[in-house]
Amino acid sequence: MRPENRAADALRPVRFELGASPYAEGSCLSIFGNTRVLCTASVDESTPPWLRGKGRGWVTAEYAMLPRATHQRTRREVTAGKPSGRTQEIQRLIGRSLRAVTDLSALGERQILIDCDVLQADGGTRTAAITGAWLALKQATAWLVEEDVLKSDPVFGQLAAVSAGIVDGQARLDLEYEEDRVAEADANFVLTNDGGVVEIQATAEDRPITSEQFADVFSLARKGIGELCLLQSQALG
Amino acid sequence: MRPENRAADALRPVRFELGASPYAEGSCLSIFGNTRVLCTASVDESTPPWLRGKGRGWVTAEYAMLPRATHQRTRREVTAGKPSGRTQEIQRLIGRSLRAVTDLSALGERQILIDCDVLQADGGTRTAAITGAWLALKQATAWLVEEDVLKSDPVFGQLAAVSAGIVDGQARLDLEYEEDRVAEADANFVLTNDGGVVEIQATAEDRPITSEQFADVFSLARKGIGELCLLQSQALG
Amino acid sequence: MRPENRAADALRPVRFELGASPYAEGSCLSIFGNTRVLCTASVDESTPPWLRGKGRGWVTAEYAMLPRATHQRTRREVTAGKPSGRTQEIQRLIGRSLRAVTDLSALGERQILIDCDVLQADGGTRTAAITGAWLALKQATAWLVEEDVLKSDPVFGQLAAVSAGIVDGQARLDLEYEEDRVAEADANFVLTNDGGVVEIQATAEDRPITSEQFADVFSLARKGIGELCLLQSQALG
Amino acid sequence: MRPENRAADALRPVRFELGASPYAEGSCLSIFGNTRVLCTASVDESTPPWLRGKGRGWVTAEYAMLPRATHQRTRREVTAGKPSGRTQEIQRLIGRSLRAVTDLSALGERQILIDCDVLQADGGTRTAAITGAWLALKQATAWLVEEDVLKSDPVFGQLAAVSAGIVDGQARLDLEYEEDRVAEADANFVLTNDGGVVEIQATAEDRPITSEQFADVFSLARKGIGELCLLQSQALG
Amino acid sequence: MRPENRAADALRPVRFELGASPYAEGSCLSIFGNTRVLCTASVDESTPPWLRGKGRGWVTAEYAMLPRATHQRTRREVTAGKPSGRTQEIQRLIGRSLRAVTDLSALGERQILIDCDVLQADGGTRTAAITGAWLALKQATAWLVEEDVLKSDPVFGQLAAVSAGIVDGQARLDLEYEEDRVAEADANFVLTNDGGVVEIQATAEDRPITSEQFADVFSLARKGIGELCLLQSQALG
Amino acid sequence: MRPENRAADALRPVRFELGASPYAEGSCLSIFGNTRVLCTASVDESTPPWLRGKGRGWVTAEYAMLPRATHQRTRREVTAGKPSGRTQEIQRLIGRSLRAVTDLSALGERQILIDCDVLQADGGTRTAAITGAWLALKQATAWLVEEDVLKSDPVFGQLAAVSAGIVDGQARLDLEYEEDRVAEADANFVLTNDGGVVEIQATAEDRPITSEQFADVFSLARKGIGELCLLQSQALG
Repeated sequence: MRPENRAADALRPVRFELGASPYAEGSCLSIFGNTRVLCTASVDESTPPWLRGKGRGWVTAEYAMLPRATHQRTRREVTAGKPSGRTQEIQRLIGRSLRAVTDLSALGERQILIDCDVLQADGGTRTAAITGAWLALKQATAWLVEEDVLKSDPVFGQLAAVSAGIVDGQARLDLEYEEDRVAEADANFVLTNDGGVVEIQATAEDRPITSEQFADVFSLARKGIGELCLLQSQALG
Repeated sequence: MRPENRAADALRPVRFELGASPYAEGSCLSIFGNTRVLCTASVDESTPPWLRGKGRGWVTAEYAMLPRATHQRTRREVTAGKPSGRTQEIQRLIGRSLRAVTDLSALGERQILIDCDVLQADGGTRTAAITGAWLALKQATAWLVEEDVLKSDPVFGQLAAVSAGIVDGQARLDLEYEEDRVAEADANFVLTNDGGVVEIQATAEDRPITSEQFADVFSLARKGIGELCLLQSQALG
Repeated sequence: MRPENRAADALRPVRFELGASPYAEGSCLSIFGNTRVLCTASVDESTPPWLRGKGRGWVTAEYAMLPRATHQRTRREVTAGKPSGRTQEIQRLIGRSLRAVTDLSALGERQILIDCDVLQADGGTRTAAITGAWLALKQATAWLVEEDVLKSDPVFGQLAAVSAGIVDGQARLDLEYEEDRVAEADANFVLTNDGGVVEIQATAEDRPITSEQFADVFSLARKGIGELCLLQSQALG
Repeated sequence: MRPENRAADALRPVRFELGASPYAEGSCLSIFGNTRVLCTASVDESTPPWLRGKGRGWVTAEYAMLPRATHQRTRREVTAGKPSGRTQEIQRLIGRSLRAVTDLSALGERQILIDCDVLQADGGTRTAAITGAWLALKQATAWLVEEDVLKSDPVFGQLAAVSAGIVDGQARLDLEYEEDRVAEADANFVLTNDGGVVEIQATAEDRPITSEQFADVFSLARKGIGELCLLQSQALG
Repeated sequence: MRPENRAADALRPVRFELGASPYAEGSCLSIFGNTRVLCTASVDESTPPWLRGKGRGWVTAEYAMLPRATHQRTRREVTAGKPSGRTQEIQRLIGRSLRAVTDLSALGERQILIDCDVLQADGGTRTAAITGAWLALKQATAWLVEEDVLKSDPVFGQLAAVSAGIVDGQARLDLEYEEDRVAEADANFVLTNDGGVVEIQATAEDRPITSEQFADVFSLARKGIGELCLLQSQALG
Repeated sequence: MRPENRAADALRPVRFELGASPYAEGSCLSIFGNTRVLCTASVDESTPPWLRGKGRGWVTAEYAMLPRATHQRTRREVTAGKPSGRTQEIQRLIGRSLRAVTDLSALGERQILIDCDVLQADGGTRTAAITGAWLALKQATAWLVEEDVLKSDPVFGQLAAVSAGIVDGQARLDLEYEEDRVAEADANFVLTNDGGVVEIQATAEDRPITSEQFADVFSLARKGIGELCLLQSQALG
């Protein structure tokens, strides 16, 4: 049995609080069960040096955890002097995913910086981050349209992210921390509302899984993403 | 006139939400107007290397801001590879202040790590941090007593912190951001509920202030600290 | 047409030179067309601190490129003071993949360090690295058996890695650099010789791809991995 | 009794050697008892990037200790790769203090860099540094006037710094190392020759001090600063 | 007796493989016995900032070892975050030596970056690097002449490098690793084909050597450099 | 003509002030003309980790310049986060030279740390540092003998260092800054009082020098070292 009798194909309770960070152009507190990630989108009227003069914009992301987001306190990355490999992987993943649904030429020579700060971590922080970040991004581009900076919204697609894995031989959707730490395989999917593939990252833990197991978790993810996209649309109103 | 017609000797609306971070041994969301600082206290059953075998414990603090806590996005310190001078000053100040009201021998060979993470910054983040950190620390030591790890609470004093400064030649209590940036002088006071002095840091900005002006801000601070200690006591119930 | 009239489902000419680094316990120069990666396996009779006393070993990897492995010179990472996010992702991927086919308890409290140094880069360096690293690892564990340090080989599975992607709307196996830079999607697969899934990392570049396109590249990868495993077995003799 | 029968309100023997560093535009070896700090002022005809084009100049400071300035050898900060929190606090304090008596617009778009290097440390290095740095700064601005770069001296005020603290319950002026390490409270004051307040930093060590104790150390500091300003004026001739 | 009955004044078998790195403007695999160093020369149409607008070019070098170039694995320098003192000394030596035979004004405002990467290390890596680097540089400048970027070759002199030392009281040429680690003195010479002195670095290990011993190793080096210059000329054809 | 009519084979006025740093076990202010280097020797009753349990000691050195030791202010190395290549070369040279005249087994499992801090720089700082460091080391080992820690002095040889170079085609001893910057070649010699060779580092600047020129500077250095050793002996009394 899963914690709190959750069905194998069920998401945790999900909620999106838009506007959670009042100074940002877009923001969303993304809540998946006990996981809480504050996502903000900041419009920056400059681009990274390597893009200057090319007539295109950029969307990039940073990710971090508060030290006591976790059951045991985690050391701040600034103490080590650099983001860990895990952090860098996650922030690259968030940025890449959002760029895949954004028309960077239509954005113009400006940058949108996404910050995903984990306030509480109970598994699935990267998928909660991506799902909330899309909402923050969408608010920021809507703000650019309202302010007459842009004529139309450069975000042309809707996406969400969810994890799925194999626990005790069973495919399960949206793993929480206690499941994640004993999972035989863990996969993160970033898919669009119409089933397009943006990113798939699947990892077998102790030994390889079968093709069929991979097909099962992929199928669960498609179901979960459908539900998440609906919730996103409701949040946007 | 001050913003929102605040009197020169009035605090902003202050609120303390205890237990804001469910995994920590002590936590408090410290709210001074639009300034919001999440303070957690983590008990660590080890001490820094230089204290080992000395029969004493330690209280130390870290401080950081979320990038979009501010009106304009601030660069993460991990990107620069190290905490700024300002951050280090603040975290040293928080730790030193709390140690001045804690019996480190009574704490035993363990460490309490205070994390102060600014979620929203509108001036006075370090004083909101210290005032909330004292509450988080107090909860953590209470937890150690409840768990029978300690026989009595090693925190022997109550303290709070507040800023006061000279704006337009007038002494004002608890400056918010718009006041802070034009202040002629800015001072931070950490005092106990019975008027003891823990830390005073006063800085003239463009030119020296007079002894009388310093006496005025000190007097405002004493009044503010009295009110803050009362609110702390109410929060602890 | 692909460069040199290669079929969409064909690997580049692949060759493995075992023993390329005479001082290492295992080594393999892994050649995929113009991509050349020197993989070594070094046995270290210690484990990382967090594993000590747990009766298990570890397999980990590092990855780097010579500055002039590329068409344009690339700056050394030591100059920046740290490995890039891309480098860290790749070395985490290599280590994780190899651990998924190694019995870490059977390895005992020792560590095998895999070094993958790219001498020439023409696309697919990470998949050439993983495929060659498995051979270097296998030699090193064989050496441990020969030296009577271990009774049996802790590497229980065979794996290889290959890329596949969508270029001009067509699914293609084993992209070289000129294809990679214009690909609509790029995926890396680490699979076992019997079709098990170790790692899948698929990324859409400018816009999402369809589920069918993902299925096509997955299918190409399975074919390629089958051929690579055969070549590995031949190299081992 | 204090070391060498010093009265509670007496400074150590103080001496200023102007011109101690022949290549600098201003320099002063600042000697307080066994504490010796070499202060230099270097004129730099550029400003930090964030000040460019604003028609104002800047005064900033760096502080360091020779490794064997102390009784036990201290590790060089370059070995750790960054200045310690203590060093950063001190250099920020020195720069801020000097800017409070300098008309930065009158200085023009140039920078004066103050270097305070401690050759021998016996307590009070930061106050010896500030007091000597003011003399070095004053020489450098006099040089700018002599060289016809500036029409008048932009340093409009005179300041000095001194420590005072509570040792064995007694308020004492200008603590030396043996006193400092057992002090119940330690405060540093930067005041002008006419009693203006530039900076006050007071810290209780093990437990809070009373308001009266703070008033006592403040009063000692005022007396000490008066004497130091006289010695500075004599040194300038 | 020396390993493999080598005479005291004999070089190890030496071979130069030009064009070993196909993408570089110049490259040479420099082989001295079991020591193998891959040297590449990259033309960069920019200069370091401090040279801009001065009408001169620059030649600079970087040096590194693959982790398993050595009998025991060596930690990557990127892990430590910076090149070691030894590495920096070697790369400064290589750059300085090559600049002493290059007319930097004739090179024009461009830079040639030399990379020396040690694939196998058995003593004498820095001298193999310099000797091979000269060949790579020479190819790169020849390429600039062929491409009509330069009218004539700015490399006006020919140089090579060799080590010589005192082992068991005997002067020996071109020490290999087993000799180097027990040598009483070790010297590296960079000389021109006509006997000019570019660099001499001689170091006594446990105790000083005599002037006569230094004269003996210098004499061996002159003989060795003559032979190396001949081999270089043959390689260039 | 040389500055101040100095003869080509003459040293600048040289003076050694022993005991210049009162807290150190050994110290010497080493003055060569306008170059002033403070050298201290600190006894540390531990050894670096890689020497532990081997029954031997170690002598090592650090070197730095005060920012305003030079005509133009030099940036502190701590600002860059690491010592420059030049600094590392010099500190390795100082340590290596002193170890060549010290019996490390006789020193026992302890370390002597030499600090050479340049207070004023007018050329020849590394040779002034080595020459003064030998005196500081000698005092520290004498102190160890006096304190009955050691039975006899482990420093078995006397050494000094001097530069010599080719300026305007002429061989000159002990170059000062104005000569050094235009020299055709620059060499540093560390020799013993009886003519033994400890270190030779010779560098041609723009083009190679002849063997004869090298012989000339070597000869000047031998003369200079003789005089320096005499002055050292006088300073020791």
